[in-house]
Amino acid sequence: MRRVLVIGIGMGDPAALTLRAVEAINRADVFFFLDKGEAAAELIELREAILRTHRRAPWRSVTAASPKRSAESGYRAGVEAWHAARAEIFARLIDEEIAPDGVGAFLVWGDPMLYDSTLRVLDTARSVTAPGAPPFEVEVVPGICAIQALCAAHAIPLNGIGEPVEVTTGRRVAGATPEAPAFVALLDDGTGLRALIERGWAGRVWWGAYLGTPDEVLLAGPLAEVGEAILARRAEVRARKGWVMDVWLARADV
Amino acid sequence: MRRVLVIGIGMGDPAALTLRAVEAINRADVFFFLDKGEAAAELIELREAILRTHRRAPWRSVTAASPKRSAESGYRAGVEAWHAARAEIFARLIDEEIAPDGVGAFLVWGDPMLYDSTLRVLDTARSVTAPGAPPFEVEVVPGICAIQALCAAHAIPLNGIGEPVEVTTGRRVAGATPEAPAFVALLDDGTGLRALIERGWAGRVWWGAYLGTPDEVLLAGPLAEVGEAILARRAEVRARKGWVMDVWLARADV
Ligand SMILES: C[S@@+](CC[C@H](N)C(=O)[O-])C[C@H]1O[C@@H](n2cnc3c(N)ncnc32)[C@H](O)[C@@H]1O
Ligand SMILES: C[S@@+](CC[C@H](N)C(=O)[O-])C[C@H]1O[C@@H](n2cnc3c(N)ncnc32)[C@H](O)[C@@H]1O
Repeated sequence: MRRVLVIGIGMGDPAALTLRAVEAINRADVFFFLDKGEAAAELIELREAILRTHRRAPWRSVTAASPKRSAESGYRAGVEAWHAARAEIFARLIDEEIAPDGVGAFLVWGDPMLYDSTLRVLDTARSVTAPGAPPFEVEVVPGICAIQALCAAHAIPLNGIGEPVEVTTGRRVAGATPEAPAFVALLDDGTGLRALIERGWAGRVWWGAYLGTPDEVLLAGPLAEVGEAILARRAEVRARKGWVMDVWLARADV
Repeated sequence: MRRVLVIGIGMGDPAALTLRAVEAINRADVFFFLDKGEAAAELIELREAILRTHRRAPWRSVTAASPKRSAESGYRAGVEAWHAARAEIFARLIDEEIAPDGVGAFLVWGDPMLYDSTLRVLDTARSVTAPGAPPFEVEVVPGICAIQALCAAHAIPLNGIGEPVEVTTGRRVAGATPEAPAFVALLDDGTGLRALIERGWAGRVWWGAYLGTPDEVLLAGPLAEVGEAILARRAEVRARKGWVMDVWLARADV
C-alpha cells in the first residue's frame, strides 16, 4: 500500500522535532513541497535545513506551485475552489511520484492538526487519484505547535485550573470577544488584538512572534499596558522581515 | 543561577520526545518524581524507561510522596491547599537538591502547558524557598500532548476551516455542552460523554485511550452510533488495567 507521511516539524528549530519525526523523515522516498508565495522562500529553506540536519541518505523532493486563492468569489467559495485545486495537485503527486509500496512525505509547519489544510486536502485527494490507482494510507506524526511554543517561551500554562481555553483566529476575535476565560488567537493580522484593545478588554496577554527561530520576540502583560506596544512591535518586525508569524494567549482571570 | 527544567515527555512512547527534550534530559543533574498514587507505578515506570533510553550518563533522582488532596473541603479550597503543600515540597527539593549553578528537572506527562500544575506550583514555590536561597529560573521544553496524540492517531484536523475549538474538561461538558463547533474533553471520567449522549447531541466524536502506548484503543463515529460503545469500551479497559487515560474530540459540523 502507498503511504503518505504528514510530519509535523515544529516551529523551525531542527531540535524541536520529535524522534518519531526524524525516523519518519528517514523512511520517506520522496518529499513534497508546496511553494506558497509569502514567506515561502524562508519556510522552504527551513524545511531544507531540517532535511540536511536529519536525513541520513540523499533525498528526492518535488516542488509544486500552490494554486492561487481567487480573491473574486466569497471567502468560503474561494477556500473551496483552492481546496479542490490543491487536491488535484496532491493526487497527481501521489500517483506520479509514489511507487505502489512507496512512501511520500509532507513536512507540515507545527502540528498537522492545527489550522493546516494538508489532512483535509489529502482526504479529498483520495477521490481524485487516477482510476485504478492503488489506495494510499495517511500516517500523521505530531509536531510542536505554535501554542506550545508560545506557552513554553513564556513558561506559562495554557489554561486556568480546570478551566476551558478557546483556540481561535484573529478574524473571529475581531468579530466578537470569545467567552472562554482564556483564548489563543492564531492567524491574526493584528485586527483581532486591535479589536480587543478598542473594546477595553481587561485581562492579560502573552504574545510571541517567530517563535522557536533566532528572530523570536516575546511580550506580555495586562492588555491595557502592553497592547499598543505589541502592535507596534509587530508592525516593526514585519516591516523588517517582510512577513511575520505570531500568536497570542489572552486570560481574563488574571 | 539554579535552573529547573520542566520537560514535556509526550504520551509515554520514548520516540515521542523531541530532540530538545533529549538534550534537556542529558543536561539535568537531578530528576524529581512525585509519587501520585493512582496509575502512579506505571507512570513512574514509563518515566524511568524514558531515562534508560535517552540519558547517557548515570542519573540521580529524588522521589517525594505527593500530598493527598483533602476530600473534606470544597473542590476549590481542596485544590488550593494541595497546591500550597506541593509548593512546599518543590521548594524543599530545589533548595536541598540543586547546587547554586545546578539543574533539576521535572518530567511532565504530555506538555506542561496543558492541564498540568507543575508550572503553577513552581511559581508559588519561588516565594517559599529558604530565606537567602538564590533564585531559580524555569525553562520549559514542550512535548506532544494528548490532543495531538488523539488527532494524529485518527489522522484528523482539530478544527474546522477557520473555526474555533474549545479545550475543556469532562466535568465542564457534564455541566453544559460547549458552544464551539468543536471541543476536546480531557479529564473525563465518562460523565461528560454520558451527558452529551443523554442530551441527544448530534455530531461526531473521535475517542482514544492510552494513546501512544502499546495499549492504545481508538473509536470514532457519530455520537448516536458510537457513544455507548465508547463508554462500554472505556469501562472494560479500565477494569482490566485498573486505570484509564482517555480523551475525545467532538465536532458538531460533521
Ligand atoms: C496556518 S497556521 C499553522 C499553525 C501550525 N500548524 C501550528 O501547529 O502551529 C499559521 C499560524 O500559526 C501561528 N504560528 C506559526 N508559526 C509561528 C511562529 N513561529 N511563531 C508564532 N506564531 C506562529 C501564527 O498564528 C500563524 O498565523
Ligand atoms: C492532568 S491531564 C494532563 C495532560 C497532559 N499534560 C497532556 O499534555 O496531554 C490528564 C488528561 O490527559 C489526557 N491524557 C493523558 N495521557 C493520555 C493518553 N495516553 N491517552 C489519552 N488521553 C490521555 C486524559 O484526558 C487525562 O485525563
